[in-house]
Amino acid sequence: MSRYWSSIVHKLTPYIPGEQPKFANLIKLNTNENPYGPSPKVLEALKAEANANLRLYPEPDGDSVKEAVSRYYGVAHNQVFVGNGSDEVLAHVFLGLFKHSLPLLYPDITYSFYPVYCKLYDVEYETVPLSEFFELVLEDYRRPNGGIIFPNPNAPTGIALDPGVIEELLKFNRESVVAVDEAYVDFGAESAIRLIDTYPNLLVIQTLSKSRSLAGLRVGFAVGNRQLIEALERVKNSFNSYPLDRLAIAGAVAAMEDRSHFEKNRQMIIATREALAENLCSLGFQVLPSKANFLFVRHPFYDAEELSRALRKEGIVVRHFAQERISQFLRITVGTDAQSDALCDALCRAVIRPGSK
Amino acid sequence: MSRYWSSIVHKLTPYIPGEQPKFANLIKLNTNENPYGPSPKVLEALKAEANANLRLYPEPDGDSVKEAVSRYYGVAHNQVFVGNGSDEVLAHVFLGLFKHSLPLLYPDITYSFYPVYCKLYDVEYETVPLSEFFELVLEDYRRPNGGIIFPNPNAPTGIALDPGVIEELLKFNRESVVAVDEAYVDFGAESAIRLIDTYPNLLVIQTLSKSRSLAGLRVGFAVGNRQLIEALERVKNSFNSYPLDRLAIAGAVAAMEDRSHFEKNRQMIIATREALAENLCSLGFQVLPSKANFLFVRHPFYDAEELSRALRKEGIVVRHFAQERISQFLRITVGTDAQSDALCDALCRAVIRPGSK
Repeated sequence: MSRYWSSIVHKLTPYIPGEQPKFANLIKLNTNENPYGPSPKVLEALKAEANANLRLYPEPDGDSVKEAVSRYYGVAHNQVFVGNGSDEVLAHVFLGLFKHSLPLLYPDITYSFYPVYCKLYDVEYETVPLSEFFELVLEDYRRPNGGIIFPNPNAPTGIALDPGVIEELLKFNRESVVAVDEAYVDFGAESAIRLIDTYPNLLVIQTLSKSRSLAGLRVGFAVGNRQLIEALERVKNSFNSYPLDRLAIAGAVAAMEDRSHFEKNRQMIIATREALAENLCSLGFQVLPSKANFLFVRHPFYDAEELSRALRKEGIVVRHFAQERISQFLRITVGTDAQSDALCDALCRAVIRPGSK
Repeated sequence: MSRYWSSIVHKLTPYIPGEQPKFANLIKLNTNENPYGPSPKVLEALKAEANANLRLYPEPDGDSVKEAVSRYYGVAHNQVFVGNGSDEVLAHVFLGLFKHSLPLLYPDITYSFYPVYCKLYDVEYETVPLSEFFELVLEDYRRPNGGIIFPNPNAPTGIALDPGVIEELLKFNRESVVAVDEAYVDFGAESAIRLIDTYPNLLVIQTLSKSRSLAGLRVGFAVGNRQLIEALERVKNSFNSYPLDRLAIAGAVAAMEDRSHFEKNRQMIIATREALAENLCSLGFQVLPSKANFLFVRHPFYDAEELSRALRKEGIVVRHFAQERISQFLRITVGTDAQSDALCDALCRAVIRPGSK
């Protein structure tokens, strides 16, 4: 607390990201990072860009990345916005598109950064409870609002919505922006990007952190009607002219272009996820149906926080949220097959050995 | 304009950065970039960091960069904040430290991003006119305010303040934050960082874009009392958990550590600046005394905008601001000696040849 702070600072409750432990020997299944490295073409592009031209500013609007995304999705250049990670893109969305007199709506169980943005920018909001099975109930969003946002697949549940459901929502919600946060969409869900020409209020946000293995490079983007994109550009140009550095631009372009690496990578994760889900079921876990690169699981007889601590002792880090409705769940990132095996072995000891819980 | 925009978006007047022309053969003296590349050790560090670990998130708080800055300036780790370019750092300063009922004060002629931040975050402000010689008049800041910010050296004038003057200001202004924007300080001015332990309301902002030749990498930092730093951390953690990517962190650390490259680089720029100032004087220009890596000049007989156009025809880009009080000035980045010669030759033709104006 300090008399020099703006009053807003006293009210902030910053987002707490998953731990980034400094010991390399841990099995890190807590922040949904990809277990495989990025495309070799990305690394080549980065090395080539590490040259004397770093003395010069980057492209102010990350045009090359916009072009790569527009080629990938077959959309127009002015239907794409890029930012320093999808978290920055989301921040601009909250300030530029969600600050209205009517409240923003989002699920009660969702990405925990949403309420943080609302506090930062003083955005009115209401949470809409998911069903008892953690599913989004469309009818509950049929009311006046200043915007709607949800991840698809949802985080931390991993549950995906049918694209038809999103279109149904768009049909009855035309007065405010519907933002679909597709951070995890590439692991088995279907993108809503194909709907942007039909619904001028639809904005889709994606990231290169997960399916392109580039959490360390910080690149995210939004795709939507050009007027929505213009709002984001105006906010961005009032905040930071050059949010993407030269290396991030070069790496992101290479990542969007290497489709075969991307395909291979996501298919491996999907296969490991399905096998892991099955193994966890055999250990007695309830596993929510996931289309993401993580599983959200609970055990009927073992406390989630205790399980998390037991795993940590075995050198495995998973994520536990001390939050109503989900405090008995663990969110487990899908790693390699070997990491899955290590996890199941450790859980086996934890859930079966007497006294271990 | 769109009904989906937050009302704030309609009111924004985004900052317009200097042009980044796409032709490589231009002599680019318009955005104060360093004519020499970054330290070879920076390029090595970047190449080494282009590896499979990019799949992992970076350090959330850029701790390695904080440590490098704290070692460089002999300050504590918790007296340093880092961001994605000093523009991002400044944005957080405006939201986190300048939003009060009393107005923020800054010079009428200064970095043109300041009013943009004020609009973005609805910060009250008043501009304080510089003297007729474009100098800051200390007494004009002796009044109730919600904060004071100015660059030292000032942009786009290049004029530096004596460190004694800043301390005098701090002595009578203890109730609000005084932010000194030292983007250009390494080219001959003196940093106010040595005063941070004495004045808990002093915040100093620097960038690696200019004197460390890393405009393309986007790294800036602030140094001040830990309570001011905490306000910035709170805002940052409500905006984007990981603003610096892994490469930017590695490159920034290497840049802060290579003191000999830095020393050599800035001494070359200073020498070129002094020679260029002299040559421009010989051509009849009035040259404001600069401690930055640019000169702010006007010619008594030639219109600045016309001169700028004439230079452009010769393949040389400089910056002209169509703004009251300074519309007859040109801001010219200090490049290499060869670029200085080309500039003077072109100006010679423009200001002497009949009909060329």
